[in-house]
Amino acid sequence: MLEGRHFRRDWSSGYDVGRKAAAQNLADIAAMGAVPTSLVVGLGIPADLPVGWLDALTDGFRDECAVVGASVVGGDIARGDLVVLGVTALGDLGGRPPVTRSGARPGQVVAVAGRLGHAAAGLALLEAGRDVPRDAGALFEAVEAHRRPCPPYACGPAAARLGATAMLDVSDGLLQDLGHLARAGGVRIEVDPGAFTVGEPVAAAAKELGADPVDWVLTGGEDHALAAVFPAGVALGDAWQVVGAVVAGEGVAVRGRDVERGGWDHFQ
Amino acid sequence: MLEGRHFRRDWSSGYDVGRKAAAQNLADIAAMGAVPTSLVVGLGIPADLPVGWLDALTDGFRDECAVVGASVVGGDIARGDLVVLGVTALGDLGGRPPVTRSGARPGQVVAVAGRLGHAAAGLALLEAGRDVPRDAGALFEAVEAHRRPCPPYACGPAAARLGATAMLDVSDGLLQDLGHLARAGGVRIEVDPGAFTVGEPVAAAAKELGADPVDWVLTGGEDHALAAVFPAGVALGDAWQVVGAVVAGEGVAVRGRDVERGGWDHFQ
Repeated sequence: MLEGRHFRRDWSSGYDVGRKAAAQNLADIAAMGAVPTSLVVGLGIPADLPVGWLDALTDGFRDECAVVGASVVGGDIARGDLVVLGVTALGDLGGRPPVTRSGARPGQVVAVAGRLGHAAAGLALLEAGRDVPRDAGALFEAVEAHRRPCPPYACGPAAARLGATAMLDVSDGLLQDLGHLARAGGVRIEVDPGAFTVGEPVAAAAKELGADPVDWVLTGGEDHALAAVFPAGVALGDAWQVVGAVVAGEGVAVRGRDVERGGWDHFQ
Repeated sequence: MLEGRHFRRDWSSGYDVGRKAAAQNLADIAAMGAVPTSLVVGLGIPADLPVGWLDALTDGFRDECAVVGASVVGGDIARGDLVVLGVTALGDLGGRPPVTRSGARPGQVVAVAGRLGHAAAGLALLEAGRDVPRDAGALFEAVEAHRRPCPPYACGPAAARLGATAMLDVSDGLLQDLGHLARAGGVRIEVDPGAFTVGEPVAAAAKELGADPVDWVLTGGEDHALAAVFPAGVALGDAWQVVGAVVAGEGVAVRGRDVERGGWDHFQ
């Protein structure tokens, strides 16, 4: 996680960066069906970094780890020109095999848990130079979602227990990440764009900026929602929303059109 | 491990950087008495990095891991302005408790295994702008030692079996690292500077640059030798050289003078 590329110190506090760095890595563990247990943090910092920023970073790591009962167990520190974080996460599978990316089979369903498009909407507000104060309601929630993801950690091990055949956390954008599942499983995934609930922060930001909210839902990264494939007929419960189906073939399609051939205008 | 601070691409090849990044972290595992099993590598690279450099880096990781039977099992990659590596190493203690830094007790002996001062001598040659070609014999060996440390991995678990009470790998310089053992154990460590064998590359570089070779041995980092404390009377074998003793008190002393109070001129 590199300053300037993955975060800006004028847009995110040290606390935000700590929570986000922890969340991204803890979500990777949950997405394999495991309970995260510990983080190892390698940290590069400039000599003139305020100590308060570093204290806040540490607090952010601690608080995000506390959400899942994990902790930072080690690491290293070095002086650099920018803030750089390298985080490794470890977890406990509870004796189950890991849920990997490759198990999707035709006839199964694709479901998501957690927020989609929130972080992208928030980032778009910041990039547009919008002043979004704490009392800005849904718009502030979007910006906060960019600063601190809120992964549905417990849904990872729960999905494994429900028989998920493939899973990952959405970090690059749903259509792109489903492409990873399609490629790894040797299958085609068909997505129904009408199946998604658009969150209020996403809708509010879209109205503010004149954007398409579903575009953020389908292509926005960094919310670290979970996307999983389940056998048809499994009762998934309220946390999961079925948004697509696995069929024979390859690639990802929206309304029958291949995403990589322009099936979704804003897919990059 | 940050480009410009921990390595320079004009002084070290991608292969060298891979071997060194792996070695530094594998040595940390050996220094706790464990056998290294796997590495996780987070990598930041600039967009214009030649692919060949990255291939060579990967080869370096593979070859250094092969020395101990470990492998790279995962990681992540991101675009950045410089080459940045964040490495986490995992190992197997074989059921033994880890050897930590805090077990040194008065009456015990301090021993080292592996090279000391080689990497510092090589770095000094590079910093002095010396052209050291491949046929430069001992001088080239010194420069190679800077590029690729050669930690005595097997001595780590062996030390644990011999009953080592404290151990670490020498990354900052022996006097400074022994200071960590003294502080963690609540003891004083007395070092005999005459007890060290000065390696031929160190001696040759010292002659070339008019430097004190023992200075590099006592304060040079990055060779990743092992420094350990053992109960008196243990037969340590040829790999270990007894270089000091643990006594009551605090700090590190050379010939009875406190290092931190000028007991060794070039200690920083």
